[in-house]
Amino acid sequence: MRILILGGDGYLGWPTAMRFSSRGHDVHVVDNYLRRRAHEEAGTDSLTPIAEDLGARVRAWREVTGREIGVTEGDLTDWEVVRGVFASFRPEAIVHYGEMPSAPYSMRDRDHAVFTQTNNVVGTLNVLWAMRDLAPDAHLVKLGTMGEYGTPNIDIEEGYLEIHHNGRTDVLPFPKVPGSMYHLSKVHDSHNIHFACRVWGLRATDLNQGVVYGIHTDETQLDERLLTRFDYDDVFGTALNRFCLQAVIGHPLTVYGKGGQTRGYLNIVDTLQCVELAVNHPAEPGEFRVFNQFTEQFSVLELAELVQKAGAQVGLEVEVRSVENPRVELEEHYYNARHTKLLDLGLRPHLLSETLIGSMFETIERYRDRVDVAHILPRDRWRPPDR
Amino acid sequence: MRILILGGDGYLGWPTAMRFSSRGHDVHVVDNYLRRRAHEEAGTDSLTPIAEDLGARVRAWREVTGREIGVTEGDLTDWEVVRGVFASFRPEAIVHYGEMPSAPYSMRDRDHAVFTQTNNVVGTLNVLWAMRDLAPDAHLVKLGTMGEYGTPNIDIEEGYLEIHHNGRTDVLPFPKVPGSMYHLSKVHDSHNIHFACRVWGLRATDLNQGVVYGIHTDETQLDERLLTRFDYDDVFGTALNRFCLQAVIGHPLTVYGKGGQTRGYLNIVDTLQCVELAVNHPAEPGEFRVFNQFTEQFSVLELAELVQKAGAQVGLEVEVRSVENPRVELEEHYYNARHTKLLDLGLRPHLLSETLIGSMFETIERYRDRVDVAHILPRDRWRPPDR
Repeated sequence: MRILILGGDGYLGWPTAMRFSSRGHDVHVVDNYLRRRAHEEAGTDSLTPIAEDLGARVRAWREVTGREIGVTEGDLTDWEVVRGVFASFRPEAIVHYGEMPSAPYSMRDRDHAVFTQTNNVVGTLNVLWAMRDLAPDAHLVKLGTMGEYGTPNIDIEEGYLEIHHNGRTDVLPFPKVPGSMYHLSKVHDSHNIHFACRVWGLRATDLNQGVVYGIHTDETQLDERLLTRFDYDDVFGTALNRFCLQAVIGHPLTVYGKGGQTRGYLNIVDTLQCVELAVNHPAEPGEFRVFNQFTEQFSVLELAELVQKAGAQVGLEVEVRSVENPRVELEEHYYNARHTKLLDLGLRPHLLSETLIGSMFETIERYRDRVDVAHILPRDRWRPPDR
Repeated sequence: MRILILGGDGYLGWPTAMRFSSRGHDVHVVDNYLRRRAHEEAGTDSLTPIAEDLGARVRAWREVTGREIGVTEGDLTDWEVVRGVFASFRPEAIVHYGEMPSAPYSMRDRDHAVFTQTNNVVGTLNVLWAMRDLAPDAHLVKLGTMGEYGTPNIDIEEGYLEIHHNGRTDVLPFPKVPGSMYHLSKVHDSHNIHFACRVWGLRATDLNQGVVYGIHTDETQLDERLLTRFDYDDVFGTALNRFCLQAVIGHPLTVYGKGGQTRGYLNIVDTLQCVELAVNHPAEPGEFRVFNQFTEQFSVLELAELVQKAGAQVGLEVEVRSVENPRVELEEHYYNARHTKLLDLGLRPHLLSETLIGSMFETIERYRDRVDVAHILPRDRWRPPDR
């Protein structure tokens, strides 16, 4: 199958590209190095030393496996780039990770908020119009986020909700109450993609993903030049990955506020499994299918305590410390999100265990001299300074 | 009160500015003449001859009433324009009509879709950031649209829905299934504004307006130089206004498809009443309040038949003709939308009557030599040509 990976230089995009290539698919990646540039501007970097660009990555992949991956260095908000890739590659499936993915980044100031929403919404609109005009039978597998739902006081369903109201019934999109300018951009995308399916008959699967943790997949372990990035900084790092790094370097685990914030989590190897399942079982023409993509729910405090316990096993003394929450969010709330559709398709979850955390410790230990402690505490605040 | 009117050169914006000015408020209008430019490009124009720019409009207003209205000619997507207006005028209320309002325009092609969403979303984000930093106590009165809801098979509530699910309950945003790239942009706005209220404590009222009809308000009738625009073309014209014009010039009333499309409608004088009620009864800090702003529901066919009947009263022979529907929408559907909150605040509706239609006929007759028949039939289609 011809599979286009948008955002193919990222934490998940690059491992996904290698996975589909290793399965024998014809893979083409697009990336504009937005994440790399944001790190350069901020003076931060991936913990893992990644190859210098996509050219170096696909050369290493060829040397290690004999397989080819095509590359376009370009911006999805540039219509000529998107049109050109669709016209020449003629994708049958599009895996779309190509967005600005950080909530703190999007909340920094007006410029970053407007950039985030414009970048994500326009990039995705371009993909939809390219599908409409150049690849109407292709299947879009779009990475959404569980954060689109927020933390409602009812069970979260997968994309839609059957609503009974005044004696009548309809199945409608699950209401969204997202928590940042970034999460809002994903909600906007969801509405736009739903429309393109309804009105143009496109087929799409929205993967509302939880928080991903882990460093390695089968392919990243083949050669150090094939490593994927691992962000631990305040802008691009995510809860469990950051806690593991903090444990290794002897920094207190920074829990925001009370730590009762509960979210869905999954291992990076399960992200690849889910994306493969979605690609191999496409949506029907006109269908906008939504899967909640995570395997377990944890509160932030539970995660911190798991890391503390795993640390004790290997002789690390780990402190858990509450810091002022930079976000505006409920710190104690009901949370129960359904996630059965990917299991029904065959997902076999790799659940979080002390063993996995221990192996993350080992990899982090190997690169600990690359850690910059100055970029661990949160700086971007959801509220204006005076309120 | 200092009231800022965004989109103050438009069909509703200009009459709203005059209304608040006539009440003794300090009014400032902002507009970038987007609508005038779109008409120039398309070779179309308002039926009514409007003053050449905002400068001419406010001069005429001053001559007729002795009152001043401030003007900024500028684009809301330009942060320096928005920042400058907020810093100097320090609004206490902001009435926001300043968006690209046409569904057919937004569906023309990729460029128009991307422009519509970028223009509307970025303009509104700029307003929200300006409020956050420069006018945190001001009240935003934002014009939304009933089209955000689509045509669900359940009763439409005003913005929120109490949902009972698996034994638990929450009040959540009413699910949205909008029908064009334009309507989607309004849904995006709604989510962004809701967020700004929740997280920054801003106060906002979203007026989900139905289709507006009518030509005159108390103020537009004072002097011909104070007329507001009246669009009848395929891009900016709306159902009832266009039907009245078609009746006068002897063109068949163009009903799209079966004509069972049911929507909420209101008279332009009730738009002004509703906006005044919202401004005079502001939302609480942190509150995102949603009102459904219309007074009556009609199907397109019912409207056409009303116009036909009113035409017969004054000797016009009016033909109703079904044309191929350029849109993708249900032509027969359940529709029942609540609209009690503005009535509770004191709205006294001016319902549609043959008398009102008759008086619209008279005004249209006065300007019938300005009509260009070439721009009445729909050209923008929701589906690609080959499907």
